[in-house]
Amino acid sequence: VLTEHIRFSEPDQNLLLLDQRYLPLREETFACRTTADIVYALQTMVVRGAPAIGVTAAYGCWLALREAGDGAGWRETLSTKLAEIENARPTAVNLRWAVRRMRAVWAALGEASAAALSARWLEEARTVHREDIAANEAMGRFGADLIEDGDTVLTHCNAGALATAGHGTAVGVIYSAWQQGKRIKVIADETRPFLQGARLTAYEVHKAGIPVTVACDNACALLMQKGLVQKVVVGADRIAANGDAANKIGTFGVALIAKEFGVPFYVAAPVSTIDPETPTGDLIPIEDRTPREVTHVGDHQITPQDVPVYNFAFDVTPNRLIAGIITDQGVLRPPYTEAIAKLFKK
Amino acid sequence: VLTEHIRFSEPDQNLLLLDQRYLPLREETFACRTTADIVYALQTMVVRGAPAIGVTAAYGCWLALREAGDGAGWRETLSTKLAEIENARPTAVNLRWAVRRMRAVWAALGEASAAALSARWLEEARTVHREDIAANEAMGRFGADLIEDGDTVLTHCNAGALATAGHGTAVGVIYSAWQQGKRIKVIADETRPFLQGARLTAYEVHKAGIPVTVACDNACALLMQKGLVQKVVVGADRIAANGDAANKIGTFGVALIAKEFGVPFYVAAPVSTIDPETPTGDLIPIEDRTPREVTHVGDHQITPQDVPVYNFAFDVTPNRLIAGIITDQGVLRPPYTEAIAKLFKK
Repeated sequence: VLTEHIRFSEPDQNLLLLDQRYLPLREETFACRTTADIVYALQTMVVRGAPAIGVTAAYGCWLALREAGDGAGWRETLSTKLAEIENARPTAVNLRWAVRRMRAVWAALGEASAAALSARWLEEARTVHREDIAANEAMGRFGADLIEDGDTVLTHCNAGALATAGHGTAVGVIYSAWQQGKRIKVIADETRPFLQGARLTAYEVHKAGIPVTVACDNACALLMQKGLVQKVVVGADRIAANGDAANKIGTFGVALIAKEFGVPFYVAAPVSTIDPETPTGDLIPIEDRTPREVTHVGDHQITPQDVPVYNFAFDVTPNRLIAGIITDQGVLRPPYTEAIAKLFKK
Repeated sequence: VLTEHIRFSEPDQNLLLLDQRYLPLREETFACRTTADIVYALQTMVVRGAPAIGVTAAYGCWLALREAGDGAGWRETLSTKLAEIENARPTAVNLRWAVRRMRAVWAALGEASAAALSARWLEEARTVHREDIAANEAMGRFGADLIEDGDTVLTHCNAGALATAGHGTAVGVIYSAWQQGKRIKVIADETRPFLQGARLTAYEVHKAGIPVTVACDNACALLMQKGLVQKVVVGADRIAANGDAANKIGTFGVALIAKEFGVPFYVAAPVSTIDPETPTGDLIPIEDRTPREVTHVGDHQITPQDVPVYNFAFDVTPNRLIAGIITDQGVLRPPYTEAIAKLFKK
């Protein structure tokens, strides 16, 4: 399982990201030194996946501070840069969560010097990084109990190691089940338009030695009708206080089809992906991305000139379609409003 | 609306097909002179769409006869070639239907010479061609009554002019509604893996001047949730005697999602697509096509080496999800077993 795809180098003062735009064909590194680099990496999906975005943003705050320096007005400069990072993408709550966490650390330090903040923030970013891996491993243990020997698990998009600091959320559940010796198989939905399933999930699951087959998103109903899918596990970019879960476009359709065939549909996400400030899923902002992701695959144009396209990046699966939400603190079961309220009261 | 994409040239003794593999970027002609050309064109989808396959096969029989000559044993040679055409693809019933129709004409002629059969077959192929356009226009008239002014109609794959001899089945309904002055819009599902929606439906609907937007197949549930779709109309490759309808992979999922949102889901197909010999949809053979359609888009590889893929080309939408079957003899309504039996008793 991949672990080095998000790597902070203190001596070089940069964040090294495995550039996910070129996978699975090329393994290139994208080095971030500035706030602009971080924002670019987030927006163009050099790095994507809610937890990975959070970890990247945490290190991004440290890079923003380095860039702001320690001259007069560094605090104002830094605040502006943090807002740029926080607003790089709208849907995943982890981005906002990570930047707020860094801001809270800064607030707790009071009128600290830039140097003092720098030391404390680096520690915090590394903690965010480490905690994410630990959360995924915990999630994996809880989730693996739901997977039976011989199951084929369908997953949509990439909620794998690449979408996190390591191990993954939905795919982390698969890795944990596999590590427990369960003989499972994976179906990776290719996940148009950005093809995270075909390119990323297939890449990392195959690399981990687990049998994986790629299916076009269109194949879901037929595969379930054929009895080829026993469980669905997907990640989430934001979970509302009532359990409605935003995830990659197409997830909602998979959930509806799974319901039709009685296939249990699980969402795996760390507690940091749950947003108690968003009461219901219809309030989650849905990112509208560049048409080019739909009109072209690589340099190959697939639509006619001058024909518009839709490219909403996420949809929201209603809580009623979700059999369980696998978190790092255990598996939540319906009714989710109560389960989530209880979690945040702890 | 396109009409010249299937064109028989008697002086040149060939069938000229607009090569749909290169649309929308290049308009190239593929000339068929032999049975092998016809089989290649069908299998690689130079031409596709159940009715277009039927028309191509009818002319293909004539080419097979020319190739068989009139020497000793021409009848046996011809029979073998007809079987090759008939078996080029398994799912669309129109292929078998067309070849059987040509065989019936041959049988009716008794011990005719090759020359006599040739003249009669050319006439018959032209009749099949003409009848298909007429059937589509009739279907369009019946179907247009179901479309209201202001509707946005979602369609999956290409059941347009390109999928037929002209006008189209599902898209023919859209053309007819538009020609009646209804201000409608079209959403074309891109239809992975072969992208018939992004490449072909968008191309021909845009060319006809009707507003069309391409959506990834994954967007269906979100678009319906947003209230952006009022009707679904799709084509069919084979309709069983109980109304179960085989169509491009992903159609079944669209139908399930449409049911969830109360969006009427219609199938448009000529009576020749109904197969009274297939009692139910689960008996329709589903073609399993080359992995390369999934692993590559153009020359661009999207999946990792050595990872297998699923490429089932069709699925079957159960009759209970279908609000009406628009045929050239009127709109069939549930219960379909009775409606279809009545149609074939006429």
